[in-house]
Amino acid sequence: MAVSIHTIEQLIDSSKTALIGSIDDHGFPNVKAMLQPRLRKGLNEFYFTTNTSSMRVGQYAAQRKACIYFFDNVSFIGAMLIGNMDVMKDDETKKMIWKDGDELYYPKGVIDPDYCVLKFSSISGRFYRNFSSENFKIESKISG
Amino acid sequence: MAVSIHTIEQLIDSSKTALIGSIDDHGFPNVKAMLQPRLRKGLNEFYFTTNTSSMRVGQYAAQRKACIYFFDNVSFIGAMLIGNMDVMKDDETKKMIWKDGDELYYPKGVIDPDYCVLKFSSISGRFYRNFSSENFKIESKISG
Repeated sequence: MAVSIHTIEQLIDSSKTALIGSIDDHGFPNVKAMLQPRLRKGLNEFYFTTNTSSMRVGQYAAQRKACIYFFDNVSFIGAMLIGNMDVMKDDETKKMIWKDGDELYYPKGVIDPDYCVLKFSSISGRFYRNFSSENFKIESKISG
Repeated sequence: MAVSIHTIEQLIDSSKTALIGSIDDHGFPNVKAMLQPRLRKGLNEFYFTTNTSSMRVGQYAAQRKACIYFFDNVSFIGAMLIGNMDVMKDDETKKMIWKDGDELYYPKGVIDPDYCVLKFSSISGRFYRNFSSENFKIESKISG
């Protein structure tokens, strides 16, 4: 039976961390754990806070091909989304996911130049369970 | 203070899962959770069992650039190793990491054509803690 979108969303929302994949300047895949996305729009868009000075921001600025991955190592299920990662430095996007308390990491607030947003836009998905896997479709973007 | 090799080895050995990074045929990074490596030789080589027919085996056969990543989402530390992943189908390597009970997944035993080994050879490493990161060196291979 094909995996339901609900199952994938449940996995994502219950994950404490997201793994993000990037490509470094020598063409090697890189993986890093991130705090869960601040915001997601369906399975289409995911928004993460990060440091402008971080290594991953430099990698995505040079090569936006990316993936994000969520997994549960108790039930051993996982979902990978393939897509593009954009580094967003505009105030509108930065304000959109800013939360009280972020001043701890970015003392200058939402305009802190070391605060930026990673926006992931999905192209396709793959779901893993019971040692097998299947592709799933990303539905076209829902407005609002 | 620079991270100690002991800290990295402890993180790896206490991880139930390893994340492996690959590059797909469209040049996108891919991430997948694997059971912990069956064998490691220092921080130089890591051996995983897998299915010859799996998507990752096809990806590594076409492009061996890889990474492996271990993390603890309680203490929020992580270690990434960059290197090459080779698909090993020779009996010697397959026997080396075979365990009783693997017949459950590979009914034909160690010679089962759907059983093969992913061998990861490290080039460099990066360690993450307290929202910062540092590179670490891979010591030259220790024999035995």
